[in-house]
Amino acid sequence: MVAELALLRHKIDVIDKTLLKLIAQRMKIVAKVGAIKKNYGLPIYVPEREKYILALRRKEAKKLGLSPSFFEDIIRRIISESYIREYNQGVKPIHVLLRPIVIIGGKGKMGRFFEKILLLSKYQVNIFDKEDWDNAEQILKNAAMVIISVPIQITKEIISKLPRLPHDCIMVDISSVKIIPIQAMLAAHTGPVLGLHPMFAPDSEHPVRKVIILCHGRFPEAYQWFLEQLTIWGFKIHNISAIEHDKNMAFIQAFRHFSNFVYGVHLLEENVNLANLLKLASPIYKLELKILARFFNQNPHLYVDIIMASDFNLTLIKHYYHCFGKLIELIEQKDRNKFLENFIKVKDWFSVHLQECIMNNPSCLR
Amino acid sequence: MVAELALLRHKIDVIDKTLLKLIAQRMKIVAKVGAIKKNYGLPIYVPEREKYILALRRKEAKKLGLSPSFFEDIIRRIISESYIREYNQGVKPIHVLLRPIVIIGGKGKMGRFFEKILLLSKYQVNIFDKEDWDNAEQILKNAAMVIISVPIQITKEIISKLPRLPHDCIMVDISSVKIIPIQAMLAAHTGPVLGLHPMFAPDSEHPVRKVIILCHGRFPEAYQWFLEQLTIWGFKIHNISAIEHDKNMAFIQAFRHFSNFVYGVHLLEENVNLANLLKLASPIYKLELKILARFFNQNPHLYVDIIMASDFNLTLIKHYYHCFGKLIELIEQKDRNKFLENFIKVKDWFSVHLQECIMNNPSCLR
Repeated sequence: MVAELALLRHKIDVIDKTLLKLIAQRMKIVAKVGAIKKNYGLPIYVPEREKYILALRRKEAKKLGLSPSFFEDIIRRIISESYIREYNQGVKPIHVLLRPIVIIGGKGKMGRFFEKILLLSKYQVNIFDKEDWDNAEQILKNAAMVIISVPIQITKEIISKLPRLPHDCIMVDISSVKIIPIQAMLAAHTGPVLGLHPMFAPDSEHPVRKVIILCHGRFPEAYQWFLEQLTIWGFKIHNISAIEHDKNMAFIQAFRHFSNFVYGVHLLEENVNLANLLKLASPIYKLELKILARFFNQNPHLYVDIIMASDFNLTLIKHYYHCFGKLIELIEQKDRNKFLENFIKVKDWFSVHLQECIMNNPSCLR
Repeated sequence: MVAELALLRHKIDVIDKTLLKLIAQRMKIVAKVGAIKKNYGLPIYVPEREKYILALRRKEAKKLGLSPSFFEDIIRRIISESYIREYNQGVKPIHVLLRPIVIIGGKGKMGRFFEKILLLSKYQVNIFDKEDWDNAEQILKNAAMVIISVPIQITKEIISKLPRLPHDCIMVDISSVKIIPIQAMLAAHTGPVLGLHPMFAPDSEHPVRKVIILCHGRFPEAYQWFLEQLTIWGFKIHNISAIEHDKNMAFIQAFRHFSNFVYGVHLLEENVNLANLLKLASPIYKLELKILARFFNQNPHLYVDIIMASDFNLTLIKHYYHCFGKLIELIEQKDRNKFLENFIKVKDWFSVHLQECIMNNPSCLR
């Protein structure tokens, strides 16, 4: 039995090694694809090609008696690794800029993300950080684009403190709020103005399918090329108004950040035994704790800026608090029926709306 | 350029097909391994073998210039699929039972999970559900084990209503609370009593590394074989007292369930545009919404039972509510420093304790 098992395990090891070699070969071909895309300025992310591959692989897997979604997972993981490879090879610049792009706050994490991606596409990038105010005029006088990547709290102040930019310079802010920075940019600058909000962590390994929210400022035709460049890098761009942006971020960012913050403070106050909880936890609970641990591993200044950015955020948080209190009463009164009634209402609401989203965009939750 | 790209893509397709064939081959070998394990009563999950494979593959990947964690992901996904294969082939019963195992509430989801796994190991299983009370004596008179898998709210009542069981019959409850059912079983039955709590969804595809919490009741030597059987199936068993269990579940289940419930009700009350939120969302926010959608897709009766199971749960929920209110004040007063202070405290607490957990068990968050 031992010998038999050893033989089978040896066969598995041999297959695994062959898998590894094949995947390494695939990556080399991917690198060649990347080189061609780079030469011709083609986008890294080609949704139709990805869709085609996945559908075909699912079919083939089924024919061989494997679970289609299992093989899809494998191929997705390989494709995602391929994006990292292609991204790090660089992408052709879509626009020949003879002047530099200056990143204000370029030593921050998001600033460095944009520095890296711009350099990979051979744009000329200059960094402007705290210590550079004495040379501000010098650094900025020739800028084709200025990307402002500084803490929300000081964005407005920084914008107003900048020396006058060339009239055709594109002024871009990439902070997590949009109304105030765009107003400030429109007031400080007479040329093109663009508000962006990258909805991903600055440690992301590639830009493919990462969302950037776009709020137009002024002279969109002047920065049209940059939006195309973002698309070629693989970003997904969604265009909304600054007001809509800030309202949606109350839900997506301010409320969730505050809620995570309270969750962590509460666990500490209860002084729970984390090791015990993790031993006993369900997979979902572990996942939630992982999200929480990640939350507390990031920059609290960013969080507090986002949460305190508008009174709308506070109002939303208070609504939730009120709702929480109201629903505690159900538990106190042991009112099972009211709990079930509310649950079913949410369940129905969720399934109608989510179904709709998924019908329009099958990968909307990915 | 088009031709060149087409050629490279063709090469990728050929590699993918070879990958698929190799993985299908691997699955066939896995089936043979499964057959041997079944014959000899060996466990599905062999942590040392898994650890060995993963460490070796990481090394080999690195040698070939691939990211080790990338190839580890691929192999992990394949191994997890292998567990499904081995599980569905069945596992040798560790104990020859000449009498049946009866599942009370065997038509519920968790009841059916245990029916399936027991049948796969050739145990004789009888189902006892609502409509069987007239034949209760008949069905139960010869039971070697009785597994109670009924809603928490009626567990105590059902236990006391059962006819007298054979003295050597093992009485097991698998609900999400443990103090009350174990007390009820000890009162109703004179033989072996065992409290279990499966910490996984009943739609899980295999038992490997799924946690089952164990609370001893009476005569543990009588059900030792069943605990061994659970281990051979691949479950991870953690033994704690019923009191400790119920206390920990206040955090892991009652509080999280209630908190998800409130989150959903709040989103409905705000009548958010889900499609918009999903378009604009960060990956983490999408993940959180997915967890929430999954929550509202499950049985609300189970949730309300869990939440209302003990006053300790209510107390914990109220503590959180109080904490939430206290921290809202920080936002109202725009007290950035207090926010940051609290944040750092939690961050430090988290990193000390999580670090410790991970040192003792590197896969504790998996």
